[in-house]
Amino acid sequence: MPIAADVVLGSNVTIHHPSLVNLYGCRIGNDVKIGAFVEIQKGVIVGDRCKISSHSFLCEGVTIEADVFVGHGVMFTNDPYPRATTDGRLQGEADWTVVPTTVRRGASIGSGAVIRCGVTLGEHSMIGAGAVVTRDVPPHAVVAGVPARTIGNVRKPGESA
Amino acid sequence: MPIAADVVLGSNVTIHHPSLVNLYGCRIGNDVKIGAFVEIQKGVIVGDRCKISSHSFLCEGVTIEADVFVGHGVMFTNDPYPRATTDGRLQGEADWTVVPTTVRRGASIGSGAVIRCGVTLGEHSMIGAGAVVTRDVPPHAVVAGVPARTIGNVRKPGESA
Amino acid sequence: MPIAADVVLGSNVTIHHPSLVNLYGCRIGNDVKIGAFVEIQKGVIVGDRCKISSHSFLCEGVTIEADVFVGHGVMFTNDPYPRATTDGRLQGEADWTVVPTTVRRGASIGSGAVIRCGVTLGEHSMIGAGAVVTRDVPPHAVVAGVPARTIGNVRKPGESA
Repeated sequence: MPIAADVVLGSNVTIHHPSLVNLYGCRIGNDVKIGAFVEIQKGVIVGDRCKISSHSFLCEGVTIEADVFVGHGVMFTNDPYPRATTDGRLQGEADWTVVPTTVRRGASIGSGAVIRCGVTLGEHSMIGAGAVVTRDVPPHAVVAGVPARTIGNVRKPGESA
Repeated sequence: MPIAADVVLGSNVTIHHPSLVNLYGCRIGNDVKIGAFVEIQKGVIVGDRCKISSHSFLCEGVTIEADVFVGHGVMFTNDPYPRATTDGRLQGEADWTVVPTTVRRGASIGSGAVIRCGVTLGEHSMIGAGAVVTRDVPPHAVVAGVPARTIGNVRKPGESA
Repeated sequence: MPIAADVVLGSNVTIHHPSLVNLYGCRIGNDVKIGAFVEIQKGVIVGDRCKISSHSFLCEGVTIEADVFVGHGVMFTNDPYPRATTDGRLQGEADWTVVPTTVRRGASIGSGAVIRCGVTLGEHSMIGAGAVVTRDVPPHAVVAGVPARTIGNVRKPGESA
């Protein structure tokens, strides 16, 4: 089933096309919108009032706080050196350790971005479309490029942290 | 429904897997082919004889003229600074302005490219696979990279504009 | 049908969501796992014990040997200069030549990578997440970036080729 029985959905969650998503073992907060062709794996937590746009992939190990925008076609990862097999057999869950990734409250991730595992995207940070994020992003930073580098700041002048 | 009732389809449109696309409020020209896992939002116009390949996303604000090739996994955008929420509630349509993007006749967009909103891709231009386009692309230019830069020209020697 | 009648499946193939893939004319080896939102075109060969992760696209001309990991949202290509039309009509199969791509045994391709056609990814090579591969990758090399460049080697010290 595209939305597995073990998914915990908050109130007022909008899944535009339930037949065109793949959600299992995850916990989705209140007032979240989820687009088509989205996969969210087990263990993922999505906070309240997030938008998870079409074609995005949230893997095990990802935690998304409240008020986060995930653009279209965003790819998270959880294994820096993935392999299909170990010792001639398909890898199973015991063969690798999930490296966690955290997206802090109010951050935005542009479409087509790729997030290398193990990083934290700071509060209200903004990840440019098509960026490949390989390091932590400070709060309020705007980053872009491959690898992503800071190109600006979204904090208003005089605004406190 | 994956193809909403308000979609205007031209003649001889091929949608290989109607159950695996998400089209709504858009206008599709004649002799267009649309692959699987494609989303096309309201207000999008696709001209005649275009190919929209699998896994691509065409958002509101995108206009595609005739004879355009959109590769696989191409992401358009319409908001340079997207956010999930404003003042503690989910953003609605009134909370941002769609920035339009135009793809001129005969252009080609390579697979995995990301198109930042507000640009025009010139006639017969060619966008390399995996490019992130952040500026207008001149007619007949070949661009590639992140951000995309001109690396050649597809106009034949002696050919007029 | 999302899995066409002409697909040749090996033994013990796991397709997590048969209604959410698009497979036709391809040959899949034994003990292969295929995620959601995957398209595999005619002529593609996937070897034994591969993992083809969600949102990936394998086009005609791609050969994947055994024990290969294909991450999420990976895009292969088979035409360096794609066009929608030739002489005012949609291109058909006779209008271009498929350029083949080979992924050697044991290689891994990170999520969001784009593979330009005509290259060979060497045995046990590792393609970083979000890389755009434009040249052959030597066996055991680790590559990353746009365009992808060698940043390391996964062969253990003293290990032979």
